[in-house]
Amino acid sequence: MKKKIIEPFNIVVFGGNSDLAFRKIYPALYQRFIDNQLNCNFNIYAVIRKRISDSEFRLNIEKFISSSSKNDIDNNQIEEFFKKISLTEVPNHTIEGYSTLKKELEKTKEHQNIYYLSTPASAFGDISIMLKKCNLINKRSKVVLEKPLGFDLASSKTINSQLNKSFSEDQIYRIDHYLGKETVQNLMVLRFANHIFEHAWSSENIESVQITVSESIGVEKRGDYYEQSGALLDMVQNHLLQLLCLIGMEPPVKLEANFVRDEKLKVLKSLRLLNYESASKNVVKGQYTRGKNIDNINQKKKIPSYLEDIGKFESNTETFVAIKAFIDNWRWKGTPFYLRTGKRMKRRYSDIIINFKPVKHNLFNNDEEIPGNALIITLQPEEKIELVQMTKLPGPGGYRYKPVSLKLDFLDSFSQRLPEAYERLIIDILRGEQTLFMRQDELEAAWTWIESIKKCWKNNDIKNILYESGTWGPGDSILNKNHSWTRKNNYEDN
Amino acid sequence: MKKKIIEPFNIVVFGGNSDLAFRKIYPALYQRFIDNQLNCNFNIYAVIRKRISDSEFRLNIEKFISSSSKNDIDNNQIEEFFKKISLTEVPNHTIEGYSTLKKELEKTKEHQNIYYLSTPASAFGDISIMLKKCNLINKRSKVVLEKPLGFDLASSKTINSQLNKSFSEDQIYRIDHYLGKETVQNLMVLRFANHIFEHAWSSENIESVQITVSESIGVEKRGDYYEQSGALLDMVQNHLLQLLCLIGMEPPVKLEANFVRDEKLKVLKSLRLLNYESASKNVVKGQYTRGKNIDNINQKKKIPSYLEDIGKFESNTETFVAIKAFIDNWRWKGTPFYLRTGKRMKRRYSDIIINFKPVKHNLFNNDEEIPGNALIITLQPEEKIELVQMTKLPGPGGYRYKPVSLKLDFLDSFSQRLPEAYERLIIDILRGEQTLFMRQDELEAAWTWIESIKKCWKNNDIKNILYESGTWGPGDSILNKNHSWTRKNNYEDN
Repeated sequence: MKKKIIEPFNIVVFGGNSDLAFRKIYPALYQRFIDNQLNCNFNIYAVIRKRISDSEFRLNIEKFISSSSKNDIDNNQIEEFFKKISLTEVPNHTIEGYSTLKKELEKTKEHQNIYYLSTPASAFGDISIMLKKCNLINKRSKVVLEKPLGFDLASSKTINSQLNKSFSEDQIYRIDHYLGKETVQNLMVLRFANHIFEHAWSSENIESVQITVSESIGVEKRGDYYEQSGALLDMVQNHLLQLLCLIGMEPPVKLEANFVRDEKLKVLKSLRLLNYESASKNVVKGQYTRGKNIDNINQKKKIPSYLEDIGKFESNTETFVAIKAFIDNWRWKGTPFYLRTGKRMKRRYSDIIINFKPVKHNLFNNDEEIPGNALIITLQPEEKIELVQMTKLPGPGGYRYKPVSLKLDFLDSFSQRLPEAYERLIIDILRGEQTLFMRQDELEAAWTWIESIKKCWKNNDIKNILYESGTWGPGDSILNKNHSWTRKNNYEDN
Repeated sequence: MKKKIIEPFNIVVFGGNSDLAFRKIYPALYQRFIDNQLNCNFNIYAVIRKRISDSEFRLNIEKFISSSSKNDIDNNQIEEFFKKISLTEVPNHTIEGYSTLKKELEKTKEHQNIYYLSTPASAFGDISIMLKKCNLINKRSKVVLEKPLGFDLASSKTINSQLNKSFSEDQIYRIDHYLGKETVQNLMVLRFANHIFEHAWSSENIESVQITVSESIGVEKRGDYYEQSGALLDMVQNHLLQLLCLIGMEPPVKLEANFVRDEKLKVLKSLRLLNYESASKNVVKGQYTRGKNIDNINQKKKIPSYLEDIGKFESNTETFVAIKAFIDNWRWKGTPFYLRTGKRMKRRYSDIIINFKPVKHNLFNNDEEIPGNALIITLQPEEKIELVQMTKLPGPGGYRYKPVSLKLDFLDSFSQRLPEAYERLIIDILRGEQTLFMRQDELEAAWTWIESIKKCWKNNDIKNILYESGTWGPGDSILNKNHSWTRKNNYEDN
């Protein structure tokens, strides 16, 4: 793939003082700026509703940049960066409300305009309509959207039809920051540049795939949002399904956005829909109760339950979900994909485990099965790859074997900083590279599958199983037992 | 495999004050003794021709044990060990000459007797005949032989027929210490306990196999011996061919000595014999000239040539040999096995490299070929395994990939001492476990192939190519160019 040149741009951050903007967007822009990746004219407009002081705003940016970076901030560099940022008030969605922004953007008519909507989805429609009304959209404009993009298929379609009045599909960048992670991007290279993996990549050789996103935190202050989403929508619908697509997809015609997205779409459309019977067997949902958080060992104080966290007396919202999914196509027939995610788990980590089939015959001891090889791709907290393989135990005693990992730690292997997901994604947006962003039809296919599960839960026949905070989830079984590399599914088999 | 119990034994070391006995045999016995692996009655008889003092002998043993061990010697333990050893004079090969030994061994008639012949092969016949004459051999006796077991097929057969007058094949243990190395023993587990490797183990997926034993030292004081052998006999005929067998063989019926040796024999019999034409293309021989040894960087002094080392003015002996070998069977048709060994190379190491085929299609850049995966098994100086695979380079710039290793270092992974090859081999002898020892028919098959090369060299039409000490051999090309993991053969392709 040839690098596209970054042309002069304005990036307009709606929700300019949102948490996401401070934590991710500004630090990513700053990092790429000091790395000389943004060597063109550009401006950042932080759109706010109510005036705040420049100094307060800058202090906040500086705080997040310095906490996200390991090096000290260079005063000259941050000053140069601040020169690029303007606080721009847009008090309401009227022509007048947008007049300051319009005036600013018209100063640099030759720039491409990136509208980064770091706001609730409910504002997407208003903003995009106003931008159009104010003549602030041309063919080179782009719009960037953050999740959640709706709460079901219908609302997702509504949001999209609102956006489509102003933007065409190839101008829309739906962010899933998981796709910007180095280890996730490496999945393409891992799969398609390595014969040893490529030719083994099917149900012929792969027994199961496990995709886990385990969080140790609870819902924190996001209770209102979380009550509407739950783990299924918050995690599975986007991150986990995207990872499943990258693991499951056929090689694309070329490494271009639509070819890649075509293949991901095919995977989503091949996902076996669930019905009440299969969901009751293959899906487990849970909700955390009081417990202790062991990620931080010193902290002995008891942790509140989900209901206490959200300040309610009852809720059907799931904070844990585990799904045994099947891709009904030629490559994957019969290989389950276990998707698991939960809050208040024992430990925070995300990984993808490819469990290969065991060897057919045990030459060393016919009475037992030799564990299969496993390829473990860890996304969090470290980024690393391991191939678990059997090795002879040294010393006397004949051929005793043990699973041992061949390891690659990205940080150790590349003596350089691993870029943050947002840095990569923002650069891709500037370059007009859509490969790492979801297309609307992908989103809808994901919703269709998710809704086949939601539908089964609707009448609350399938109830949450309560689990103690700081454990591996319901019954302490699904994530806990064998949560090491051999981790297999413990609930009833299909 | 069930462990067999070690029964009370006497080990009789002919050549009891030989270099090998001091460097390998006694330290290995000592190590297993202090590790409580020899928890039975046993005696060690160090057979010498001329009386030496007990104290001198013990001092020597202590010196080698302490240099081979990382820990300090425990005085009590070494005293206990010395109680097991007796110096026994056998001045000549007569009944009288053997009388002391006979008297000693008859004290413990219930012990199994192990005769370890750490002598030149020319003495094997005399010793075994005398042992028989003295009634010192029964069904439980064993004989251990060190290389070289002859200098060609005929002499190998002669030695064997002499031995066979006293010992049957299942009493004979021919040592190839390479087979006792942990990484070599692990080859069985690596191949047959790992689906990811097992199902890729053929010319369908493997482009080439490279087996290299590179020494930085010259012939040292072994000139007389080396003039008769050369690199082909000293290294290829035994160590390299044995490694080739373990990589190339079919899975044995069971992990029992004769089943394993049957499979190794089949590989040796499938080796394509060379004729003058193919040898001139597929074999390179060389001899070192003066140069510098770079393993020891501080040592700036010039290193003498082979001719200077052996004190002669001419010699056709090769100190380097590289062979492109083929196994003509279903599994390996078309996959070359490159065997290489040399003295006075740039660096000392032994490894086996399995070069997998590249992926068929480069999704990332159609103009170039993606390097194939490689499995690198390093035997020396460290023992480790690496799987070289392509990984995305972190950072911007699209999908740039680079070969990066997934690594396993045996010493790091098993927080324990790796046993010396001789420790394993001696224990196997005591247990009557012949898997790691060569059978006579294997030896003869190896000789047959080696002689097909020797025959082509006979008239000296194929001459040594001179190479400077401290380089990678002839023309600096074959081992040097790409001597990293992608190391491929650089001489003319077949």
